[in-house]
Amino acid sequence: MDYTLESGVDPLREAINSSLTQFVDRENEYLNSIGSELAPVATALKNFLIDSGKRFRPLFAAAGFVGSGGLLDQASINAVASIELVHVCALIHDDVMDGSATRRGAPAIHKLFEKLHQEQSLSGSRTQFGVATAILLGDLALVWASKALHESGVNSQSLLRALPLYDEMRVELMAGQYLDVYEQALASESIERSLKVARFKSGKYSIERPLHFGAALSSGSNLAAYTGYGIPLGEAFQLRDDLLGVFGDPAQTGKPAGDDLREGKRTVLIAAALERCSAEEKLRVNTLLGKPDLSFSEVEELRSIITSSGAVDFVEEMISTMTSKSLAALETGTITSDAKAFLVHMAAVATKRSS
Amino acid sequence: MDYTLESGVDPLREAINSSLTQFVDRENEYLNSIGSELAPVATALKNFLIDSGKRFRPLFAAAGFVGSGGLLDQASINAVASIELVHVCALIHDDVMDGSATRRGAPAIHKLFEKLHQEQSLSGSRTQFGVATAILLGDLALVWASKALHESGVNSQSLLRALPLYDEMRVELMAGQYLDVYEQALASESIERSLKVARFKSGKYSIERPLHFGAALSSGSNLAAYTGYGIPLGEAFQLRDDLLGVFGDPAQTGKPAGDDLREGKRTVLIAAALERCSAEEKLRVNTLLGKPDLSFSEVEELRSIITSSGAVDFVEEMISTMTSKSLAALETGTITSDAKAFLVHMAAVATKRSS
Repeated sequence: MDYTLESGVDPLREAINSSLTQFVDRENEYLNSIGSELAPVATALKNFLIDSGKRFRPLFAAAGFVGSGGLLDQASINAVASIELVHVCALIHDDVMDGSATRRGAPAIHKLFEKLHQEQSLSGSRTQFGVATAILLGDLALVWASKALHESGVNSQSLLRALPLYDEMRVELMAGQYLDVYEQALASESIERSLKVARFKSGKYSIERPLHFGAALSSGSNLAAYTGYGIPLGEAFQLRDDLLGVFGDPAQTGKPAGDDLREGKRTVLIAAALERCSAEEKLRVNTLLGKPDLSFSEVEELRSIITSSGAVDFVEEMISTMTSKSLAALETGTITSDAKAFLVHMAAVATKRSS
Repeated sequence: MDYTLESGVDPLREAINSSLTQFVDRENEYLNSIGSELAPVATALKNFLIDSGKRFRPLFAAAGFVGSGGLLDQASINAVASIELVHVCALIHDDVMDGSATRRGAPAIHKLFEKLHQEQSLSGSRTQFGVATAILLGDLALVWASKALHESGVNSQSLLRALPLYDEMRVELMAGQYLDVYEQALASESIERSLKVARFKSGKYSIERPLHFGAALSSGSNLAAYTGYGIPLGEAFQLRDDLLGVFGDPAQTGKPAGDDLREGKRTVLIAAALERCSAEEKLRVNTLLGKPDLSFSEVEELRSIITSSGAVDFVEEMISTMTSKSLAALETGTITSDAKAFLVHMAAVATKRSS
């Protein structure tokens, strides 16, 4: 059966989900054949994968594939779906690195295995067991990503053309993650530096490289146009995410209100606010930002400083400029019209005001 | 330039090291081009890689390659060397999971970045920064492993034949690591269960799969003979490692005396001792095993219980039986004579009495 972009995002996301489910079911059968001890690993990874995500990266990869002349069959769906498993690794490891207890309302993987440690009255440190398991499950997801791609059924030429892009994407992901961790630890106030992190984490890893990967699976054309679309859109997406991390509705974001403030995230929004607010307000921001037990009224105080500084308007303006730039780039290549329409829609989804 | 197995292990290890150095230098140039913030990542990974290891897995892969009819050129050296990067990931993540402060006498990666956090007076938790960085550096090594293989220069057919083996190896590694972590937490006293962990971690991951991977890079022949050699040898190797972990000379093992006792490792040796010693001694073992601040006289006490129980003789006997079984399997395939001689030598190296 073939798939098109014309029926929109939902049916395609459905096809991607079904490909991922089939892959993980097959792998989990294998894990269970090694030993019943591995059943919790299999269950945890399957639930994490199925519960999570908008499948942005596979959707962009599918668009890149079609936009460069590919016809979406089951094999190419399997191939584009595989990159979601890279993302699963990133999320699981991210939660360990941040010490986050939850992911989309459910316990993070390391917390899940702390619970197993308790329920089975295992010996040794519960925290250490949770961390160790989450590291291994993330690693396994990263290995599964390669395996799912290798077994996708795409022809050898396509696979061999896609592998270098796939490698680039994953190296950039890890480099971007390190920049992010380091930037947080530097407590940087630089807009430029925050944008650099956004460029790696969102622009390149989440949009440009998935598009390139999709393109490489078909003819390999339109790489420059995809870069022109992906980099500014990724920055716009990250800026939207930064706004949602401070002002977003918990019911929609799945995270507590003002979570980024509590985590002390050094975003462009924060950098812009610090640049614009009074010395007294700046002191308040630097005192409150990253306070783990930030009260609701303190969250409100920070929000008010950020808004009145003009940083929100500044960031909204940037989002709008970057989105326009991104859309203009779609006209520079030979992207097929169905992919172009799909990417215009995806740009709206990625930068819209609610999560 | 072509390489042979006839000149022994050292020149081959040299060629593997040089391939790894060239790869990592190229990648590090790229990391540095992203930003100078990444320089410590590049330096840490390079030092860790160069300082570490006997290159067992690439050596076995090279033997598998030659034994199945391959001619070792630069491309195949690059390909077999790539699996050392998988191992680097395993070691870096292992140190985080165990909370080990050192690796071969040098600070473990997470400790190295704790130090950087301190030196640069970064903000946030130092421990968390160390853990986060080590997770990312391990992930990067895992991604580099794929990239090094993809860029090795082996022809497409060889690469496509090797990828499924490569995937199997990495899935089994992660499954084996989980079994190990879980087994430790279960504080299992079962010889059978400890052997199962050894089978995955050493037999399959360290020997059988590297041999298969090498075979797949050439003709794909001799898989059964390699399994017959690899599984028992891996178990013998693990049993030797267990003995060294309790009785080994720190100058040779690079780990403090009796380190496995302090870590509370549940090995076949410990299981065999518990099966054989008196109820009173058993109580002593269970009290002392895993005590982080075990004194030298307590280490001596445990060693004496283990030896007098007969567990050491039992394990030496198992090592000898398994090694013979392993060597006998070399005669069952069509392994070339140079590879056979090399594998006989490797069996001796892997199971010899000092590290």
